[in-house]
Amino acid sequence: MIPDTAEIGFDIPARPGDALSDVMTPALVIDLDAFDRNIARMRAFVTGHGLRLRAHAKTHKSADIARIQMQRGGACGICCQKVSEAEALVRAGITDVLVSNEIHGPRRAARLAALAGRARVQVCVDDAGQVATLSHAAEAAGTRIGVLVEIDVGAGRCGLPPGPAAVELARRIDEAPGLSFNGLQAYQGALQHIRDPQARAEAAHAAARATALTRTALTEAGFACETIGGAGTGSFTLDAGLGEINELQCGSYVFMDADYDRVTGADGSRPGGMENALFVMAEVMSRPGPDRAICDAGLKALSVDSGLPRIDRDGLRYTGASDEHGTISDPRGLLTPGDRVMLVPGHCDPTCNLYDWYVGLRGGVVETLWPVTARGKLY
Amino acid sequence: MIPDTAEIGFDIPARPGDALSDVMTPALVIDLDAFDRNIARMRAFVTGHGLRLRAHAKTHKSADIARIQMQRGGACGICCQKVSEAEALVRAGITDVLVSNEIHGPRRAARLAALAGRARVQVCVDDAGQVATLSHAAEAAGTRIGVLVEIDVGAGRCGLPPGPAAVELARRIDEAPGLSFNGLQAYQGALQHIRDPQARAEAAHAAARATALTRTALTEAGFACETIGGAGTGSFTLDAGLGEINELQCGSYVFMDADYDRVTGADGSRPGGMENALFVMAEVMSRPGPDRAICDAGLKALSVDSGLPRIDRDGLRYTGASDEHGTISDPRGLLTPGDRVMLVPGHCDPTCNLYDWYVGLRGGVVETLWPVTARGKLY
Repeated sequence: MIPDTAEIGFDIPARPGDALSDVMTPALVIDLDAFDRNIARMRAFVTGHGLRLRAHAKTHKSADIARIQMQRGGACGICCQKVSEAEALVRAGITDVLVSNEIHGPRRAARLAALAGRARVQVCVDDAGQVATLSHAAEAAGTRIGVLVEIDVGAGRCGLPPGPAAVELARRIDEAPGLSFNGLQAYQGALQHIRDPQARAEAAHAAARATALTRTALTEAGFACETIGGAGTGSFTLDAGLGEINELQCGSYVFMDADYDRVTGADGSRPGGMENALFVMAEVMSRPGPDRAICDAGLKALSVDSGLPRIDRDGLRYTGASDEHGTISDPRGLLTPGDRVMLVPGHCDPTCNLYDWYVGLRGGVVETLWPVTARGKLY
Repeated sequence: MIPDTAEIGFDIPARPGDALSDVMTPALVIDLDAFDRNIARMRAFVTGHGLRLRAHAKTHKSADIARIQMQRGGACGICCQKVSEAEALVRAGITDVLVSNEIHGPRRAARLAALAGRARVQVCVDDAGQVATLSHAAEAAGTRIGVLVEIDVGAGRCGLPPGPAAVELARRIDEAPGLSFNGLQAYQGALQHIRDPQARAEAAHAAARATALTRTALTEAGFACETIGGAGTGSFTLDAGLGEINELQCGSYVFMDADYDRVTGADGSRPGGMENALFVMAEVMSRPGPDRAICDAGLKALSVDSGLPRIDRDGLRYTGASDEHGTISDPRGLLTPGDRVMLVPGHCDPTCNLYDWYVGLRGGVVETLWPVTARGKLY
């Protein structure tokens, strides 16, 4: 028996076996059938292309989902963006993590080195200072950290310029106690959301050329790249055909979102045939006028950085968000207070980070609750 | 002795006495001197104008800050937007809460009625169904809930149209067991962010006229309004002079944000002379090019719904956010990895909701840590 929520503040949105209408709103809901199909699609894709998958857990921050990705989703491990996120997932049993990001300073390095005593741990670097700090931490902890050199293949974010600069850094890693040079991080984040299929393909080709240039320079200097990591949900079908990336880092594919629905192929298809599996279920709390209904999901229930959520129901449109209200245009008067509305978030990653729980739904019934294991893990 | 964070996942960003440079980033930092001055300014304002302050806790979600507002900030109580938010703050000792929002359904009503046994509790309604549900819950719990009728004074969100419609609802509340009719909720949310001082003043006058029309209809029907609640940080100096609202509901004034800095008077002054007291402290993690530095605060550390954060330092500009990265334009090369940058968030409320802890800073030293008591309380 779980104690009364109001007494202790342990506020679960539902219990297994509950009907959809019993779930407290706003709730972060997974359509488990669609989710399972996405998991299977990606497994078939990487198997068919002879690639590895290192699924990105920054999307879901869930140890349960990471475990599914590794057990039946074809993933060899997961990616995180932060050391504290990796810690949370390793504490929950995940055994192989790449922090696909630069980390700064001795304290983060020490935490990562400690984690490397409990799981296979890798991280990215783009300058020599990071190599020295990581090496010192790994030596002190008596562990070994795998390192990828990040190159900027077009996103204009972190990373060395493509080409020979990576060789010098690989050499430093190779010579540094406690570190192993494992290859390249060649993720092009900006490419994932390019709308035009032609422009997206060109950006993918440019990234592959930049990667090849760097790989060649490394090979000539005697450094083999066991791993060349990259690709996201918007680009993996392109990247797979270009022969450079051998470890896909897709994250959003498990859920998809309203923004990824705008990243379609020339035939209008979604990347890899993935389908939307994530919703914020909101409830109508007020019906103040003939044209609009007000629901209980606003800026604290949905991230609007990539646009407002979509409602897949004729006649309804989510038109505005304030902190705790969502305005729904409803000129036909379809909604009355208490009605539920399934919103497709504009951007899945930062939306999931707002919640403590996923509500897994199958056939209209709550099948499972999964905690958002690494919610708010920012360090 | 607090156990090792990596072992148990209790991940505090700092300890009292730490230097600013010891705080883990990204961190939600309060400049306590500026915060104290804002608290004192608002107290002086409401005292000088003979008004009550019911400070809005949706901004900070912190029981510590709510307590300061009630003990030395001139507040008679606080506002929340959600029942679960009110529960969290009452659990932490807050004694007087208005849920300044409609709530739907018997479960939320039952939770609110239970809470009314532990604190003074009020809520807003805009339809008869809510009145019946609340009354039933209060009767069942043997408690009493104060009720305000919400009217739409120009925001186009929740609320009855101004005028006689409120009289019928007031009568229902007055006759309903377990409920007390306490007055009107007349908050104009959209008005808070109107940039042009003239247009903002006109909107405030329109809201006051709509409130007066409704108040008069209620008075003529024999219903006195003990409370007419409304006003926010962008409008309270205007509303105070218009004589309708007697209980100010400002929230953002304690912190301010980059968006409120654009809501100035004709002379360029900020509302009520409030100053910025909230920052996200980020750290530079990569310096990949001559023009840019990359910091560790992106979409999961900052809400960008009202624009990107501001940096109050010449030569630096935050130009783009992805999930866990912020791009800073730095053509003069001021920043190297490890440097700290103080970002002024675009919108304080949803930014605070991303964190577990506030770091209170005075004279460059951590003075206190406050939990974000009601973070993620969405029901």
